[in-house]
Amino acid sequence: MDISSIIGVVSGMGFVLGTILLGGSIMMFVNIPSILIVMGGTVAATMVGYPLSDFLGMFKTGIKIFMFKIEKPADIIANLIEISNKARKGGLLSIEGDIQTTPDPYLAQALQMTVDGVKTGDIAAIMQKKMSLTKKGLDTGADIFSSMGAYAPAFGMIGTLIGLVQMLANLDDPSSIGPKMAVAMITTFYGAVLANLFFIPMSDKLMGRNEEEITNMNIIFEGILSIREGEHPKLMEDKLKVYMTGGKKEEEKK
Amino acid sequence: MDISSIIGVVSGMGFVLGTILLGGSIMMFVNIPSILIVMGGTVAATMVGYPLSDFLGMFKTGIKIFMFKIEKPADIIANLIEISNKARKGGLLSIEGDIQTTPDPYLAQALQMTVDGVKTGDIAAIMQKKMSLTKKGLDTGADIFSSMGAYAPAFGMIGTLIGLVQMLANLDDPSSIGPKMAVAMITTFYGAVLANLFFIPMSDKLMGRNEEEITNMNIIFEGILSIREGEHPKLMEDKLKVYMTGGKKEEEKK
Amino acid sequence: MDISSIIGVVSGMGFVLGTILLGGSIMMFVNIPSILIVMGGTVAATMVGYPLSDFLGMFKTGIKIFMFKIEKPADIIANLIEISNKARKGGLLSIEGDIQTTPDPYLAQALQMTVDGVKTGDIAAIMQKKMSLTKKGLDTGADIFSSMGAYAPAFGMIGTLIGLVQMLANLDDPSSIGPKMAVAMITTFYGAVLANLFFIPMSDKLMGRNEEEITNMNIIFEGILSIREGEHPKLMEDKLKVYMTGGKKEEEKK
Amino acid sequence: MDISSIIGVVSGMGFVLGTILLGGSIMMFVNIPSILIVMGGTVAATMVGYPLSDFLGMFKTGIKIFMFKIEKPADIIANLIEISNKARKGGLLSIEGDIQTTPDPYLAQALQMTVDGVKTGDIAAIMQKKMSLTKKGLDTGADIFSSMGAYAPAFGMIGTLIGLVQMLANLDDPSSIGPKMAVAMITTFYGAVLANLFFIPMSDKLMGRNEEEITNMNIIFEGILSIREGEHPKLMEDKLKVYMTGGKKEEEKK
Amino acid sequence: MDISSIIGVVSGMGFVLGTILLGGSIMMFVNIPSILIVMGGTVAATMVGYPLSDFLGMFKTGIKIFMFKIEKPADIIANLIEISNKARKGGLLSIEGDIQTTPDPYLAQALQMTVDGVKTGDIAAIMQKKMSLTKKGLDTGADIFSSMGAYAPAFGMIGTLIGLVQMLANLDDPSSIGPKMAVAMITTFYGAVLANLFFIPMSDKLMGRNEEEITNMNIIFEGILSIREGEHPKLMEDKLKVYMTGGKKEEEKK
Repeated sequence: MDISSIIGVVSGMGFVLGTILLGGSIMMFVNIPSILIVMGGTVAATMVGYPLSDFLGMFKTGIKIFMFKIEKPADIIANLIEISNKARKGGLLSIEGDIQTTPDPYLAQALQMTVDGVKTGDIAAIMQKKMSLTKKGLDTGADIFSSMGAYAPAFGMIGTLIGLVQMLANLDDPSSIGPKMAVAMITTFYGAVLANLFFIPMSDKLMGRNEEEITNMNIIFEGILSIREGEHPKLMEDKLKVYMTGGKKEEEKK
Repeated sequence: MDISSIIGVVSGMGFVLGTILLGGSIMMFVNIPSILIVMGGTVAATMVGYPLSDFLGMFKTGIKIFMFKIEKPADIIANLIEISNKARKGGLLSIEGDIQTTPDPYLAQALQMTVDGVKTGDIAAIMQKKMSLTKKGLDTGADIFSSMGAYAPAFGMIGTLIGLVQMLANLDDPSSIGPKMAVAMITTFYGAVLANLFFIPMSDKLMGRNEEEITNMNIIFEGILSIREGEHPKLMEDKLKVYMTGGKKEEEKK
Repeated sequence: MDISSIIGVVSGMGFVLGTILLGGSIMMFVNIPSILIVMGGTVAATMVGYPLSDFLGMFKTGIKIFMFKIEKPADIIANLIEISNKARKGGLLSIEGDIQTTPDPYLAQALQMTVDGVKTGDIAAIMQKKMSLTKKGLDTGADIFSSMGAYAPAFGMIGTLIGLVQMLANLDDPSSIGPKMAVAMITTFYGAVLANLFFIPMSDKLMGRNEEEITNMNIIFEGILSIREGEHPKLMEDKLKVYMTGGKKEEEKK
Repeated sequence: MDISSIIGVVSGMGFVLGTILLGGSIMMFVNIPSILIVMGGTVAATMVGYPLSDFLGMFKTGIKIFMFKIEKPADIIANLIEISNKARKGGLLSIEGDIQTTPDPYLAQALQMTVDGVKTGDIAAIMQKKMSLTKKGLDTGADIFSSMGAYAPAFGMIGTLIGLVQMLANLDDPSSIGPKMAVAMITTFYGAVLANLFFIPMSDKLMGRNEEEITNMNIIFEGILSIREGEHPKLMEDKLKVYMTGGKKEEEKK
Repeated sequence: MDISSIIGVVSGMGFVLGTILLGGSIMMFVNIPSILIVMGGTVAATMVGYPLSDFLGMFKTGIKIFMFKIEKPADIIANLIEISNKARKGGLLSIEGDIQTTPDPYLAQALQMTVDGVKTGDIAAIMQKKMSLTKKGLDTGADIFSSMGAYAPAFGMIGTLIGLVQMLANLDDPSSIGPKMAVAMITTFYGAVLANLFFIPMSDKLMGRNEEEITNMNIIFEGILSIREGEHPKLMEDKLKVYMTGGKKEEEKK
């Protein structure tokens, strides 16, 4: 569970609603046509901009923003060390059993190729290609949210322009100018909140999460090559542990 | 057929028109001079910015946004495996027949060079150069739409400035100020809709489509080199299948 | 001659002037101080931003936007094949005559080095360095137009601010507010038209033209290395022809 | 201590407050709801955009902007030369004592691997990976401030939109329009000051500081490889001293 | 002396002042608090964003914009050819005298290492590192001006917001609204002029000048390696002359 996403969205909505309530009724900010043009326009532009499968994948990607779960680098490394030790004692064939039990298809395929005796260069090429294609797929998911973060304020402005044009064309009743302009501006408000509290930060969060997933794939990649080459498990451990301490280095240093 | 482009454009227009109709007549938003300056100015700037051939190519590229058709990676891979098997059994010359039947000129040329016994390094150099030049050509097509997405709001603003200057220079009749400003703002509205519902998302869609085309070329590139080098069809299959599962990897993993 | 640049500039001016005339007199949009601040400020900022030689080179670069002339890749390739055939039959020295007749100094120098028996690696290093320095020089030319595309709207805004401040400081005569604001806004209008119809698209066009020039240099580069290494003219043709079909590949494929 | 950060923040606040006081009371610019929406919204969006650990790390990173302390390249180089001399006289094992006394864990680990006789290639791979992961971690710290520099003006605008909508919906009392708009605009003012005096420059400062830290790691990296390879201390000194004079070169030259 | 910088700044100020004087008195645009907030805020933000040494270095860098002086590539090349000829005739030791007489410390150090018999690879590594660190140092100088070009309009807007809030909070005297708004807008005017006539073009000019300095270092780098390797002076000349004709190539070609 991504606790900061949940706190952020809830508290952010709280700050916006609180500021509204301090100045008047919340009903002043509810306007169905404004919601229609901002949400509808943003979704429509996103559909023009991405293939249907990517657009639909957005909903599954969206869940990851709040429910992200990923294996810890430390666990992956411990698992790889165990496999490395087994391979050293019983030969590469002895790790065949791990292929069935591992839940990660990336690791499973890599182990399978290792057991099958595929050459190190070919294993590396296949794993690296898979990693870069996975990264591209994950980044498309973040890109969609980033695009929505650009479309939402644009359709907010389009909605406001519609409202202003309609108001300006009928200035007969001066007392209606204020409320009409208020309604027109709500659309800009919707677009700004959607972009800055939801789409843009969500895209940022996804980009960070994608990097964590790719880091894990990288650990597996380096671990498998080490096992395939018969490197000593201790050296492999030294190499992989960098992934655990790397991000924390600054703390130790000061 | 690109179903999401069609849904996106139709529903987007629906949301915009619906919002307009909820507030008044659609006629308020039809203004010929505004259309002239936004559309004409955008097209003129695009012609200054690109050579005539690229500008005219835009119309053919535009069709791709709605009618995109491309061979599936799985089919290309199956075809390559078949050719690989044939070459293994009957020698490289036995694949000469496939050159005539393949509809893809990129594959055909690659097969021809393989049959002709051109060195692997030279085949690779020629195919890679062709791939990168094709990518450049395709990306120019997407760039034009992206440029139009920048010119449209600019000429929208230019039209609005013309309207405002004319209104401000003649403030004699106060009752005409509102309608005149309304007309002036329609130009900005046109520019914003053209850019955010059409040009910018269309450029995004084209960029994604271009990558699909280049991925297919990449599959052919790797497959042909594998055939030319006499690699086992099974290993080639393992290498190429990454292109099928790559994008889907995240699904299996969770 | 770059026909699309001419059509674009002429039609663009036509659309802007047409829109103005549909709403009133053109004289309303002529204001000498506005022209002074936008044009003068843009030129002054460009002089601060670039060395004098680059600034003056801008005028020659500007001609290229409308009068661009470049050798066709097909002609360059045909010429190189001819030279390659001659060198194969009569030896490298037999191509000495082509050095005098070639109008392109890049090709001439490359041929001279080939005849002089300079090592392939040294020829490649010198030609590549020359290509990258030429590209840098050409791109500076496009950068100046791009910078002017950023300065023009900025000085348009500066002119409008001057007009607004002067109007606001003297609100005694209400009837003069409108015309004064109209004049103030013309400066923004000038800046927007200059940037979006001239400077920005012109920079785009120059970037595209520069790439064509560099592509031609690349063809010569690859051709000369092929000749120097004594590659078969047929293989050289296969390699260089990619530059002719590359951009058109997408057409054949569909 | 980073004296320029402190002078900058204090004098910047002074200029802003001074300008306010020259025109009226400071109380006009204190508005609790405005502070709530700008600060709260910015923090909320940042929490959505970054994992909890990165968000919390921001406070420790923030201290670095004012209290940055780092070993001088000259001291690091002197220390490495000393170790190099010791290793040359007494062998690699003689430097084991330095591992305990060095406060820098990066240097300590590198020395440990050197003493343990790990191969140069493996030491280089581990140290380089650690360096690049450290850089990524440090840059995330600067990125958060950069994101806040984008969210603050956005929530400033959101707050202003809320105020404007509420004002426009209730235009009954004309005398309240001015003060209400004043309050609405304060939110934009808060966002602009937070972004331009705090978040954006702070992110710039952090980026510069991160590079200093990575430069130090680079010096250690090159020094250890030189020691491991048994290079002459004088050559190592020549190589590392570049890091001391590099930034100052321009001074000597003129 | 950089004549275009001087013409640009003087004529730019002339155009701005001329436009002002055509519309009224210059005194309308002089406002001490506005100058304070824009200049002070920009300087304060720059101090937060950069270390004290970089900030102070800005003044020396600023001089370079108007007084730039650099050795011509042709002179450097001539000097290197002379040294190369001397080294060929009298051996590497015969160039020892040039070390004292050369005013450029980069060339001096390179010659010293050559005379000392340092290996080519080590000379190259040290010289390249020095070049890239020098480039980083020079670019930081240009970056500061670029940052100021972003801070100046931001503090211009902050000043305008302060003025608007103060005006809106006191609408009692309608006749003072105009002049108060005029004063508020002057701050935006200051920020725009500072950014677009000074800071941004100055940063552009510095970036161009930095490249000239690095090009000169590159010429020395290639020349010294050529001398160290004992290449024929004629070949070295051919290689280095590219730097003289490169930028001018386009002229010859047309």
